Amino acid sequence: MGDRPILTLDETRLLLAEYLPDEHGFDIAEVAPDGLVFTADPASLSTRPGGTVSGPAIFAFADVAAYLAVSAYLGKTPSAMLTSSSITFLEAAEPGELRARIEAVRIGRRTAVFTARVEDEPGRLVALATLHFSFPGRRREL
Amino acid sequence: MGDRPILTLDETRLLLAEYLPDEHGFDIAEVAPDGLVFTADPASLSTRPGGTVSGPAIFAFADVAAYLAVSAYLGKTPSAMLTSSSITFLEAAEPGELRARIEAVRIGRRTAVFTARVEDEPGRLVALATLHFSFPGRRREL
Amino acid sequence: MGDRPILTLDETRLLLAEYLPDEHGFDIAEVAPDGLVFTADPASLSTRPGGTVSGPAIFAFADVAAYLAVSAYLGKTPSAMLTSSSITFLEAAEPGELRARIEAVRIGRRTAVFTARVEDEPGRLVALATLHFSFPGRRREL
Amino acid sequence: MGDRPILTLDETRLLLAEYLPDEHGFDIAEVAPDGLVFTADPASLSTRPGGTVSGPAIFAFADVAAYLAVSAYLGKTPSAMLTSSSITFLEAAEPGELRARIEAVRIGRRTAVFTARVEDEPGRLVALATLHFSFPGRRREL
Repeated sequence: MGDRPILTLDETRLLLAEYLPDEHGFDIAEVAPDGLVFTADPASLSTRPGGTVSGPAIFAFADVAAYLAVSAYLGKTPSAMLTSSSITFLEAAEPGELRARIEAVRIGRRTAVFTARVEDEPGRLVALATLHFSFPGRRREL
Repeated sequence: MGDRPILTLDETRLLLAEYLPDEHGFDIAEVAPDGLVFTADPASLSTRPGGTVSGPAIFAFADVAAYLAVSAYLGKTPSAMLTSSSITFLEAAEPGELRARIEAVRIGRRTAVFTARVEDEPGRLVALATLHFSFPGRRREL
Repeated sequence: MGDRPILTLDETRLLLAEYLPDEHGFDIAEVAPDGLVFTADPASLSTRPGGTVSGPAIFAFADVAAYLAVSAYLGKTPSAMLTSSSITFLEAAEPGELRARIEAVRIGRRTAVFTARVEDEPGRLVALATLHFSFPGRRREL
Repeated sequence: MGDRPILTLDETRLLLAEYLPDEHGFDIAEVAPDGLVFTADPASLSTRPGGTVSGPAIFAFADVAAYLAVSAYLGKTPSAMLTSSSITFLEAAEPGELRARIEAVRIGRRTAVFTARVEDEPGRLVALATLHFSFPGRRREL
């Protein structure tokens, strides 16, 4: 596709701190040409009886990660809004850190599409999501 | 479809209290032949800067509502698991109570499909979700 | 929502004839304030061994119906493009005519969202789809 | 995941010929441990005015590819049924052959989940789909 993140890891981490000023347990492990990797501390995720991470908690993690990825690819875009998403839950996540691998499948002028592959600590794929964002026309200058 | 809830409003409310023993702000307004109506107190929903209810908070509300609807239609089914979902966000929710209208579009022996129409206090449709659940084979006796 | 179709049944039927000039077996049964109803002649739908209508044939029917609904609500919009969709298949369709009930859940300036409820001849719900369309900014003049 | 196709390329091609005995323009380019690659001859795909491949034609291609992938991973499973799917259309496909890369994200005892990445002849990603199949309990021997 030719699109690459234009923010660095540190710049993206700064946006995360601005976006979620309270304790949240999310961090960014990697900002690379082919995507971003986010982590979530299990203590920050709401769990179901038995200790399993809930589906909505996984979705919230993927949403924050993809929301920040919009800015990583386009420059700071606080007005980006999630317009639709589909998510499949594949396995119950083992206790431990979660990782979300975010791939930009389309970066357009007013919309962007990302996939999120969420893995648990042992590395098993626990969820797969597609997320569509829209934002006021940017990149007019490009 | 011919399927109707077999639990009453009070029985469904009891399951909600068991499922989420802590303060959560969710309640059930109606258990009727054609579906269930849940409410969410805005104070219980995580918001974005500006006071807008976040997409994942709306998704979490729809998920709890549909999870309890599984039991309302099938009898207590604590093992029901959300396997996949798609959600479209249509409008930013106005501050105030949210309502989720849950319709059972298919109640099968091991899977169930629900739609959730989430409305804000002024009654505008803010989100539309389809939720797929699976559960160990039940209704063998039927 | 307040949105109502602005084309009549005959005008919408004319667009269908323009859009699919060859024999196709689709027709429009109703254009009403709360939505449109399309029909599909089973002979026009590709079937699986055994005579069951295939999933993609049902999807193609819903797509044509929702594509025409864009124009019914906005005026002729040939440039509307399907950007994403989710579909759930609930029952195998019985042989016979299919009906697709199209509801406009959001008509925006550049995007529109529809749901399609597809029923078989006996009236059972066989599929449920959400379809997202985009089109160059219109309605500025409206 | 550890799951690998158990059919060879030739065996999968044989199933394609059985499943679609008439001329269809689909072929299989690769059956590898990490997935399958299908091709579609453009002459076999229904197009929109202007020569663009239609969304439903792309969906039909992904569906056939994933349906055969079920058998490639599980052994011949003619009863597999598509239960739900989400698809995002990213770019208009350029005229020419389409390729669908099928990845098995979960192979269960009664359900399987695949992703399809559909590329046009120049190699651009034109669509991304997630497909859920169910089938009567197999792998009884496990």
